[in-house]
Amino acid sequence: MNEFGRQQGEGSPTGGPVVAIVGATGAVGTTMIDIIDGRGSVPWSEIRLVASPRSAGRVLPVRGNDVPVQALAPEVFDGVDIALFDVPDEVSAQWAPIAASRGAVVVDNSGAFRMDPDVPLVVPEVNAEKVTERPKGIIANPNCTTLSMMAAMGALHREFELEALVVASYQAASGAGQAGIDRLYAELSAVSGHEVGMRGGDVAEALAGAGLDPAASPFPAPLALNVVPWAGSLKDDGWSSEELKVRNEARKILGIPDLKVSATCVRVPVVTTHSLAVHATFAREVSVDAARKVLSEQPTIVLRDDPAAGEWPTPADAVGGDPTWVGRIRQALDFPNTLELFVCGDNLRKGAALNTYEIAETVAARL
Amino acid sequence: MNEFGRQQGEGSPTGGPVVAIVGATGAVGTTMIDIIDGRGSVPWSEIRLVASPRSAGRVLPVRGNDVPVQALAPEVFDGVDIALFDVPDEVSAQWAPIAASRGAVVVDNSGAFRMDPDVPLVVPEVNAEKVTERPKGIIANPNCTTLSMMAAMGALHREFELEALVVASYQAASGAGQAGIDRLYAELSAVSGHEVGMRGGDVAEALAGAGLDPAASPFPAPLALNVVPWAGSLKDDGWSSEELKVRNEARKILGIPDLKVSATCVRVPVVTTHSLAVHATFAREVSVDAARKVLSEQPTIVLRDDPAAGEWPTPADAVGGDPTWVGRIRQALDFPNTLELFVCGDNLRKGAALNTYEIAETVAARL
Repeated sequence: MNEFGRQQGEGSPTGGPVVAIVGATGAVGTTMIDIIDGRGSVPWSEIRLVASPRSAGRVLPVRGNDVPVQALAPEVFDGVDIALFDVPDEVSAQWAPIAASRGAVVVDNSGAFRMDPDVPLVVPEVNAEKVTERPKGIIANPNCTTLSMMAAMGALHREFELEALVVASYQAASGAGQAGIDRLYAELSAVSGHEVGMRGGDVAEALAGAGLDPAASPFPAPLALNVVPWAGSLKDDGWSSEELKVRNEARKILGIPDLKVSATCVRVPVVTTHSLAVHATFAREVSVDAARKVLSEQPTIVLRDDPAAGEWPTPADAVGGDPTWVGRIRQALDFPNTLELFVCGDNLRKGAALNTYEIAETVAARL
Repeated sequence: MNEFGRQQGEGSPTGGPVVAIVGATGAVGTTMIDIIDGRGSVPWSEIRLVASPRSAGRVLPVRGNDVPVQALAPEVFDGVDIALFDVPDEVSAQWAPIAASRGAVVVDNSGAFRMDPDVPLVVPEVNAEKVTERPKGIIANPNCTTLSMMAAMGALHREFELEALVVASYQAASGAGQAGIDRLYAELSAVSGHEVGMRGGDVAEALAGAGLDPAASPFPAPLALNVVPWAGSLKDDGWSSEELKVRNEARKILGIPDLKVSATCVRVPVVTTHSLAVHATFAREVSVDAARKVLSEQPTIVLRDDPAAGEWPTPADAVGGDPTWVGRIRQALDFPNTLELFVCGDNLRKGAALNTYEIAETVAARL
């Protein structure tokens, strides 16, 4: 038997830890497998793939081996050291505690536990030390929109003391998973070759003409040739859940309980990579040069900020890679100690799978 | 001869004023003709179409009549009461004074005169009275991005006294004229049917594969499946010309010389209609309900703000119409006297042709 073929519950005879990916067949789960394929940081003795019963039985290649997908059940967690969850909130709420009770450290990418005071919310560049404070055996991975700016904001906060953030997002379709990706491609095919987008409602008409049912979309409005100022569910006073996540999760990750945050979350017709326009106010004096110096020293940030040379971050450049791209750094002309920045991060990688895996690496290093 | 067939310089025998559209064959010029076709507000005795020598000789339908396009020359302005210019800055800089010297009131949609202290910058809902203060015979029409939010900001300012704006834009391809529209359609056809947008650079590859030369694009990066945080030219300290226009023009139009403004201008793959996420701080206490009341009383604003019913503004809905759409109004949770709003306005209509024409209507009513 090869390293991936051990039976469940067999322990770790080769000495390496055992990892399970729960939700292995989704957009984030398959990205986790890509990341495991590309990084040798942890000598996993077994990589176990888990999904809903519907997807069980499929076989996916992992590090060159064919690994069968197992159906989610309590016993799949026996012998697992670290379980990476990317499943809907309600599935995490039910199953993460079960996995933890079987001895796994759960790294959960749903919204179920992020604001739980007994669950750390971790971005390794910012608060890696929190991974050991996990009374429930669960560590939460932040929302992808929040995550896109955390490496940059964490670095700037350490230097200049962050006080306030005003954020507008340009969020990709894949934030809604594989269904979002599929829908955007289908919508683009429906509008391509037609001169639509010049009259009210003609994008919706083109989609209807192509048989694309609005009710079947993961988005609440057409996304092709459009932007949709809505992501998530409706919360109090007109705020979307996504906008409140940016506020509450940024506060928790950065450890600034009174951080002032206002976010407007908008979906754009980009397949993958979220972008954010960030207006960040600091307690201490800040300059563009000082900010550039801080950001250029971060190993997980690509500073791309030379407009004279046509250099700034765009999703089409940043997608598929691990780093967060930062550029368009400007000193606000009318607001003291305030910078404007534009940030792009692959929402399936750093925004989800990569950060989850980096948390697992951090945990594994302390096992 | 019908009302459009009079010879140049003949005066206004039927009593109505004479209007010339300079740049009549461009994206904004043709929209001006659409607007003239649809509005009977001014009894023009003649509608004269003017363009570059390259486009002269073409015949365009105006109010059911075939009107030949004349080549730009000093004498085309003889007998013209109001000349609407939509041409590049340098063409306006040269020709608007010539038209004015021939007796026409020029309404100019270029950037050539907007910040000239002797040229009023007018949004009729906000500062219609300024049209009579025109020592140079020239009135400027604001930049389309600034314009998209002016009707709303003007109304809110009158009630709550605006102090600061933080703005992120979602700007349409047609902001770069017909070339922008054509390029976006071509790029969409090139990426449609391909699963691109998941790897860095693959959008650029798909465009190259379709023979679309980056150097031939009006945009500095691929726009299909992408967002580009750049519009205009490079100004001091990393700011784009578009971002400084939002600041300087908003101050002039609203009559608030010390208004605090920070804007990040971003191009998105939308054909027409600019959207803005606006964080607006006022001197006086403001509530969502009070703001809704003010905005709902504006005849040129559509308030679309009921997320529970899936109602918010999107470009695909607002495009092709005259009103500015406003929604997603929220009270900022951590910033006093501050509202968040999302605004959509057709950049070819209110953002350009319509506001220019509304200025002409305002001037015509005072002739």
